[in-house]
Amino acid sequence: MKAEIIAVGTELLMGQIANTNAQYISARLPLEGIGVYYHQVIGDNRARLREALQLASSRSSLVILTGGLGPTEDDLTREAVADFLGKPLILDPEVLAELEAFFTQRGRTMSENNRKQAMVIEGAMILKNPRGTAPGMYIEQNGTHFFLLPGPPTEMRPMYEEQVVPLIRSLHGQKKTIRSRILRMAGIGESMMEMKIADLIRKQSNPTIAPYASEGEVSLRITAQAETEDQAYRLIAPVEQELRNRLGTYIYGIDDETLPVAVGKLLRERKETVSVAESCTGGLLGAAITDIPGSSDYFTAGYLTYSNRAKREILYVSEDILNNYGAVSSECAKAMAEGCRKRSQSDWAIAITGIAGPGGGTPEKPVGLVYIAVSHKNETVVHEHHFRGDRAQIRMRSVKAALHAILQCMKTER
Amino acid sequence: MKAEIIAVGTELLMGQIANTNAQYISARLPLEGIGVYYHQVIGDNRARLREALQLASSRSSLVILTGGLGPTEDDLTREAVADFLGKPLILDPEVLAELEAFFTQRGRTMSENNRKQAMVIEGAMILKNPRGTAPGMYIEQNGTHFFLLPGPPTEMRPMYEEQVVPLIRSLHGQKKTIRSRILRMAGIGESMMEMKIADLIRKQSNPTIAPYASEGEVSLRITAQAETEDQAYRLIAPVEQELRNRLGTYIYGIDDETLPVAVGKLLRERKETVSVAESCTGGLLGAAITDIPGSSDYFTAGYLTYSNRAKREILYVSEDILNNYGAVSSECAKAMAEGCRKRSQSDWAIAITGIAGPGGGTPEKPVGLVYIAVSHKNETVVHEHHFRGDRAQIRMRSVKAALHAILQCMKTER
Repeated sequence: MKAEIIAVGTELLMGQIANTNAQYISARLPLEGIGVYYHQVIGDNRARLREALQLASSRSSLVILTGGLGPTEDDLTREAVADFLGKPLILDPEVLAELEAFFTQRGRTMSENNRKQAMVIEGAMILKNPRGTAPGMYIEQNGTHFFLLPGPPTEMRPMYEEQVVPLIRSLHGQKKTIRSRILRMAGIGESMMEMKIADLIRKQSNPTIAPYASEGEVSLRITAQAETEDQAYRLIAPVEQELRNRLGTYIYGIDDETLPVAVGKLLRERKETVSVAESCTGGLLGAAITDIPGSSDYFTAGYLTYSNRAKREILYVSEDILNNYGAVSSECAKAMAEGCRKRSQSDWAIAITGIAGPGGGTPEKPVGLVYIAVSHKNETVVHEHHFRGDRAQIRMRSVKAALHAILQCMKTER
Repeated sequence: MKAEIIAVGTELLMGQIANTNAQYISARLPLEGIGVYYHQVIGDNRARLREALQLASSRSSLVILTGGLGPTEDDLTREAVADFLGKPLILDPEVLAELEAFFTQRGRTMSENNRKQAMVIEGAMILKNPRGTAPGMYIEQNGTHFFLLPGPPTEMRPMYEEQVVPLIRSLHGQKKTIRSRILRMAGIGESMMEMKIADLIRKQSNPTIAPYASEGEVSLRITAQAETEDQAYRLIAPVEQELRNRLGTYIYGIDDETLPVAVGKLLRERKETVSVAESCTGGLLGAAITDIPGSSDYFTAGYLTYSNRAKREILYVSEDILNNYGAVSSECAKAMAEGCRKRSQSDWAIAITGIAGPGGGTPEKPVGLVYIAVSHKNETVVHEHHFRGDRAQIRMRSVKAALHAILQCMKTER
């Protein structure tokens, strides 16, 4: 099954945003055994979108469109696809009711042009969008399967995971099923990881092994095709074991178990709490931990001590340390973590202090120098990092490294 | 002159990277008076790339290719374009000499497959690449102008600025330029905004007006075409004024001025500082403010007071308030903001307390209920919000609303 993604929106052709929707879908369709062969980006223009649909349906059997489902006049994906398929747009009372509910629930009156979003292609299956006003659609014609998805990633991504994936599985994987297992790693680079398993990747067939690198962490996706789910996982098991033998020390979680999830899971098991003290990450670590529902059970408090005054008064960092070693130092990180634990009376505390740049670097303390301290009971461990990249990358890598650090501490302690 | 961008690389179709090269070029071509009408992404496949070239040259007079100029076997842009144009690839001794120099300068010996990068399309103009090994190329045939640029942004971007832009300027004589002005708004929905200006959008031609919605904010892009930059902005000015008359209260910034940038800019002008007290956003507000380089000049500290204990001890929130009104209340938000300002001795303080969900909601205090308080001198303003969406959306919308709230306070105060 060949797949093609058509992203609709002049903001893409004006360079206002990157086509991250195509990237997101392209990274996931292979998990369903489907290869993506083409991306197209078209502006808010009905004639050109029609040409794009013509081209796509001539070469791809799965066509996923993103964007152009909004309420404004330049949102015309719905109209262009209906036109191309030779089908009318009809008002869906259920969708209209949900739209009205959406607005009344937030105490707003629905504007007239939102009614347009209740117009659906005749014969299309509706994909509900609880996170926004634009419902998605699925329709098949002459063996080509069309998905219309909203543009905002916060609406498109869950709709893809919750509604598109099951549909795709049902329509292409009748006999075969595809299952995968993701091994999540931190503390190792992609190339180093690939070197350790190059032979396995070379001789792979079923299951397949696909490396992924995201900011500050890497993962391996083991994907197996089989008659049943059990058989698929039986194919995956020995490969997973072999990978664990070679990379075990770096593997912190599987599947959807991101670093914040893994940390939260362990803290729950241990019935312990954590607090954070952040300088250069300015809240990013706290945000990552509290991104997990129920994190209030184990996250007590965080202190974004940008100023030295805050480091002294909130975290009890001594004048001596700030004067003799500076705010970006192993000593300061240690003092921040210990002060943080004392201040919040949590079982664990993580501290981050560093230079995220672009300014503020010196020959002795260059941009990218970050100290991470983890404090627990009578022990405090400090790691020195030298991160590459821009401000955003250095901050994100610091957060990943900090979460990995506390995980290591909790695991080795056992 | 219609432009089209063809990005070549299987890593794009695998979702390993986003097509930021297309975004970069798309944002800049309009400055030369050239509109981008299409993006295509093709894998490392010669036949499909040939088809893409066929399509592009049938509808666009400027075709920019990125990627596929590397030394490995799957880098075949050079071959595919030569094949499509019916021209041979010839060894360019000058390029070969530069390649050898590139490696010797780095104390490395050139591998045999790098020689391939010295093969150029007969009749093409070479675009030097001092930052990498793949030279770019420019060649025209039957009125279509082809640019071949390397994939790595660190090589593509300077090559575009230094060599492609001057060439483009020289080759399209009629010197038109396109300039845009983006008006950024918060506190209003996309459909509501569009209703207020529907008549303007309907009668638009030059300049054009394009709405765009992202998480928690909306924007309008005014785009004008003219002989000169000045003339373009003179066309934009009256339209911008009319839009400001209708939407002024919602407009917080222009062009690249995001909410955190706008807040930082105003704080700098006023030589004032800000601190934050976060509950349900758990650091997301602090992270947004400190995402801006140099924010340490005005951001003093933040307190992620998840537990009531932390609210009491760090922010001086009274037992009474927590017992009688609860942590999610207008009273608590007010006390948090005032305590935050007192604790950090900052000029301004922003406090957020609410229920991000999915759990923790009650009939009286449902998921999505968020209180935002802004404290300054002797005044503290509190806003009550009812946000829709999942945990991530509610948290992000809370941050946007909080930044918008302090902006409003700073502006109205003047």
